[in-house]
Amino acid sequence: MYRPAARLADIEPFHVVELFTRAHQLQAEGRDIIHMEVGEPDFPTPEPIAHAAMAAIASGKTMYTQAFGLPELRQAISDFYRQRYGVDVPARRIAVTNGASGALNLAFACLTNPGDEWLLADPGYPCNRHIVRTYEGRPQAIAVGPQSNFQPTPAQVGAAWSEKTTGLLVASPANPTGTLLTLPEIAALAEVCRARKGHFMVDEIYHGLTYETDAPTACTAGDDIWVINSFSKYFQMTGWRLGWMVIPEPYLRDVEKLAQNLVLCPSTPAQHAALAAFRPETIAILEERRAEFRRRRDFLAPALEALGFRITARPEGAFYLYCDSSALAADSFALARDLLEKTGVAATPGLDFGANAPEKHIRFAYTTGVDRLAEAVERLRRYFGR
Amino acid sequence: MYRPAARLADIEPFHVVELFTRAHQLQAEGRDIIHMEVGEPDFPTPEPIAHAAMAAIASGKTMYTQAFGLPELRQAISDFYRQRYGVDVPARRIAVTNGASGALNLAFACLTNPGDEWLLADPGYPCNRHIVRTYEGRPQAIAVGPQSNFQPTPAQVGAAWSEKTTGLLVASPANPTGTLLTLPEIAALAEVCRARKGHFMVDEIYHGLTYETDAPTACTAGDDIWVINSFSKYFQMTGWRLGWMVIPEPYLRDVEKLAQNLVLCPSTPAQHAALAAFRPETIAILEERRAEFRRRRDFLAPALEALGFRITARPEGAFYLYCDSSALAADSFALARDLLEKTGVAATPGLDFGANAPEKHIRFAYTTGVDRLAEAVERLRRYFGR
Repeated sequence: MYRPAARLADIEPFHVVELFTRAHQLQAEGRDIIHMEVGEPDFPTPEPIAHAAMAAIASGKTMYTQAFGLPELRQAISDFYRQRYGVDVPARRIAVTNGASGALNLAFACLTNPGDEWLLADPGYPCNRHIVRTYEGRPQAIAVGPQSNFQPTPAQVGAAWSEKTTGLLVASPANPTGTLLTLPEIAALAEVCRARKGHFMVDEIYHGLTYETDAPTACTAGDDIWVINSFSKYFQMTGWRLGWMVIPEPYLRDVEKLAQNLVLCPSTPAQHAALAAFRPETIAILEERRAEFRRRRDFLAPALEALGFRITARPEGAFYLYCDSSALAADSFALARDLLEKTGVAATPGLDFGANAPEKHIRFAYTTGVDRLAEAVERLRRYFGR
Repeated sequence: MYRPAARLADIEPFHVVELFTRAHQLQAEGRDIIHMEVGEPDFPTPEPIAHAAMAAIASGKTMYTQAFGLPELRQAISDFYRQRYGVDVPARRIAVTNGASGALNLAFACLTNPGDEWLLADPGYPCNRHIVRTYEGRPQAIAVGPQSNFQPTPAQVGAAWSEKTTGLLVASPANPTGTLLTLPEIAALAEVCRARKGHFMVDEIYHGLTYETDAPTACTAGDDIWVINSFSKYFQMTGWRLGWMVIPEPYLRDVEKLAQNLVLCPSTPAQHAALAAFRPETIAILEERRAEFRRRRDFLAPALEALGFRITARPEGAFYLYCDSSALAADSFALARDLLEKTGVAATPGLDFGANAPEKHIRFAYTTGVDRLAEAVERLRRYFGR
């Protein structure tokens, strides 16, 4: 007897896992693999954060917390909004979650009725559409490209909005492209949603990892906007699974009920660790690492372009370069596999990010040092015979 | 604009939170509160587990793991099944999850179509019915009582099964009653589900905390049974949020897809901590604590009965006494509030556990030492004028 729920037919695995597994198999066989496929910073969690966790564990601070997290952590996040962005986000509107994933689950569970449509950018982070589907919503892709810096425009959102549409999710910086939304662009998208009595959600999990300008937070554009963030990327706490969400006031009770029932509370050691995330000595470490990410991007982008990849998005943030590979190969999935086998360079084909010309794109993550990036470029140069 | 999903109307908060908040308010005012309301052991996480976490954090083991968790942890859980229960559960069938909550979310998301009914015992753990509802299933209560030791019988399950029913969830030891299912009882319930091509799920999160006989695992009764477990209770890792699930082979790929998209991975520091959970020195600590729980139960149960509470369930496991308070008060919710205000003893009214005579029941958790339990009993004695 095999009788899974119907939603499983619409939920895809990460295609990159196949490639990742093969990469580790080759590595086990002694091959030197350069990992540019995974969305995880190569830096360890900063020492002040790690030490705060160890101190909390040593003193027995490992019991359940409130469903929305430690009050002092919620306050610290609120303070961070004031200091970094100059915006007042009261602690009571902040829920600490099991990573940004946990936040997205709670938000979509709170807002999605069966059949409700959510507008999502394509290419985009693949889990979003699968989380929407899990709560019986219907993800609707808005194809985005270089003409709008891979972000949906108000005109596109207005045109895509149907009677079934319940809201819009955007990401700034975006994954896989690293492109940003300006504050006027965020405000304009919010207005489109408001005018249609729809929800507006903004994924800000790559905030802090921007290299020209700081990304503006959607919290500045209205307290009716759902804002998702994470300790994984800028704060380099991936495996700790901790994030947060800024919730519009009317929904606080609903999200809390969901969190009490679905989650109980986020990881207590991780929460105590995160209390050290906003300290000046931690921020100093993070800003050094941000500068290093910038150096990597500034090395890798022109080097890939010299090989024939086209970077049509302005990669202002995150740690990805989303490249048009169509001048080099007809099918980026085949290219990614061939690159791995022949050069040991692992990258993510467009297939994981949606249905908008995935075969023409490949994503390189600059989550490894410049020397290794240079080695990767050299191998690609030989592969393409340049 | 306030437009939550319809499911929110069916999802209740924890009622005990109101009481808990009031208890902490009274405490802040200087009152001495005896906490018997929360399902959390008062023991700190055992030292070998805490040390394993600190060692992992110190050596930078804080990156993402596979969605189903560290292969060595899955293997350690598999070994535990062989050693403790004499049953072979291959590591590939074991998924490490964000607590038992995470396991329940993945299982119900995998198996529940909109409108599908799940049979659940009432009284029972309240989150179960809300998780089912979240994935658009319909929880159907089976009223259980002393005549079946607060567990559903095969006859009840057969009678409650409708065309819409997709499966049955039971818990052994149960919450709030602490009652067990024998292996023949588990096998008989499994057979009822099998005969109807339904799913069978068994919550074993209080395994290890039993005081007469070890609870048998449902893994012994068939590899088509979904088994949920947790590091929270016996292993005393509540705030770490780590659990696991044994998945029937045909569904491995589906649950993995869900875990990849909804969760990414369980907490990495918690997973490294849990690697020490099965070591002999940890088990020795846990078994001492189990003996202490037994002493508490053996003190508290007759003391409450002497006051006029009736314990109609055989509380063989977990750390709860579910008492019939109807000889003492008409409404257990009012009683719980009054007890808190007048005696400083905090207990959980039946209201949180379902719709089956909740006003007649109150749950006392023996998660505090015998001296404090004795003090609580003394206060209750004065309150009832005995």
